[in-house]
Amino acid sequence: MAFLFNSDAERGAVFRSAFVRELPDLPFAIDSATIDPDQVRYVISWTVPHGLECYRNLELLFSVGAGVDQFPLTSIPSEVKVVRMVEDGIIRMMQEYVTLAVLALHRNLPTYLDLQRQRQWRPLLQKQATDQRVGLLGLGVLGRAVLESLKPFGFPLSGWSRSAKTIEGVATYCGQAGLSQMLSEIDILVCLLPLTGDTRGILDRGVFARLPKGAALIHAGRGAQLDHLALLAALDDGHLAGAVIDVTEPEPLPSDHAFWTHPKVLLTPHVASATQAETAARAVIDNIKRYEAGLDLIGLIDRTRGY
Amino acid sequence: MAFLFNSDAERGAVFRSAFVRELPDLPFAIDSATIDPDQVRYVISWTVPHGLECYRNLELLFSVGAGVDQFPLTSIPSEVKVVRMVEDGIIRMMQEYVTLAVLALHRNLPTYLDLQRQRQWRPLLQKQATDQRVGLLGLGVLGRAVLESLKPFGFPLSGWSRSAKTIEGVATYCGQAGLSQMLSEIDILVCLLPLTGDTRGILDRGVFARLPKGAALIHAGRGAQLDHLALLAALDDGHLAGAVIDVTEPEPLPSDHAFWTHPKVLLTPHVASATQAETAARAVIDNIKRYEAGLDLIGLIDRTRGY
Repeated sequence: MAFLFNSDAERGAVFRSAFVRELPDLPFAIDSATIDPDQVRYVISWTVPHGLECYRNLELLFSVGAGVDQFPLTSIPSEVKVVRMVEDGIIRMMQEYVTLAVLALHRNLPTYLDLQRQRQWRPLLQKQATDQRVGLLGLGVLGRAVLESLKPFGFPLSGWSRSAKTIEGVATYCGQAGLSQMLSEIDILVCLLPLTGDTRGILDRGVFARLPKGAALIHAGRGAQLDHLALLAALDDGHLAGAVIDVTEPEPLPSDHAFWTHPKVLLTPHVASATQAETAARAVIDNIKRYEAGLDLIGLIDRTRGY
Repeated sequence: MAFLFNSDAERGAVFRSAFVRELPDLPFAIDSATIDPDQVRYVISWTVPHGLECYRNLELLFSVGAGVDQFPLTSIPSEVKVVRMVEDGIIRMMQEYVTLAVLALHRNLPTYLDLQRQRQWRPLLQKQATDQRVGLLGLGVLGRAVLESLKPFGFPLSGWSRSAKTIEGVATYCGQAGLSQMLSEIDILVCLLPLTGDTRGILDRGVFARLPKGAALIHAGRGAQLDHLALLAALDDGHLAGAVIDVTEPEPLPSDHAFWTHPKVLLTPHVASATQAETAARAVIDNIKRYEAGLDLIGLIDRTRGY
């Protein structure tokens, strides 16, 4: 029985020292050439490793990232359990990023940046947080944590997910009708959805049209969920007031793309959140211990829904 | 006995309706010409009103703002109690602004904005919040509230004030030696001090030199506390990594000032916090009720320290 680490060496060193300490009886390999494939029970990787079929005794395939959209699930033997990354570091970074983005839009930062470029000292009318309604798409571990970070500021909060959920202090919606209703009642839309067949291209003209005039978008899901031309049209015709964009399709964004220079767009290069080696190693070790003790895995992918 | 409101008419209308409801027996005047000066017991104003000496029975002078540096205290009869504005709206806005500014510096937003201008998609090394030490100058009502907002993110917090204070979860310092020590141990310095003779020009070359290389400044105190040339020198020689500046001297900032175009400076036009009419009216009414019941006033100025 062995664990194969198939990702960058720097993170691998952190994983190795944690594994040696916590699971001393489990051989740990970074180089697949150093290990008998039949020994490999667990693999962690960002993409599906070449020759996955060689690991005939593989039981768990861990994703390095929070999503598994980079794994073509159909290419993974059905008896292998696929597990996404649920770890404190990723969660905390996403809480920071979305709180930063919500506060930036709430406090008119994109407009103030534009006024700074124009050397204009012009205080703007400021909405109160209690009048700034924030709606999340995606109520998984990240979405729920983000809502907790936003609560103390007093924003009225709502959230939408595929299946019905209940969260204290949050108006929750599900299904297509629920989505339309939530969109009509919020000022800042935050996308944290996983990329699946259902969510590809979900941020489209129809979604933007349902938002009230003057609303804004924060996109920290996956690039392929956003229709760039629809967003640009909604910003340019004045329907949307601003956007904070962390993920694009493709990445990196081509240098002639309109997002780079748009005065209403704050663009960051897919840095909203990233797996942190220390906390990720601990999360994977805990999951292996849970698995070996017969407990449920945290972050186990349901292949029928794709996340 | 009467209350004279000496500020803008829009806010005055909000105050009037709250006063009529809560203190129906207290005559409320917006136009001083409509009232017998001898009746005026309470005045609210941003600056010291002309002819203040006419109000021979004046007992309380309320400031519209959180500070009273715009009141020359020596020109106010010594028997008049001066009260600054302590109200939920001001506090909440300052919590939002400083949290936004801290998260923006923590998550390298100034650099990402600069990279966006250069059309460069370049993820930067991200520090963890637990390694981002935030230190506040000023531990009054605003400072303490801001610390509470920052706590959930996990930043190591410290704070400095003139006199020794104890705040749970915050390393506190006082005095000149305490200031030097705190500065050497923080990555983000936040100034929320009131403007007094002691704090004028406090953010100077010596303060910046004591901060570790790569530190950043958030200035939401008063403009006259900051030595602009010292800040520009510290940014340009690479000692400081960035600054978020909300207050300047003078305001508005002249259009040829270097802050407007500096790639490491985010500039906002004195909007970090402002008195909110609804909550301010409630705070003033509560204070008048406290005063008439013989209780301590909230925000009473100590004339010997000037705040």
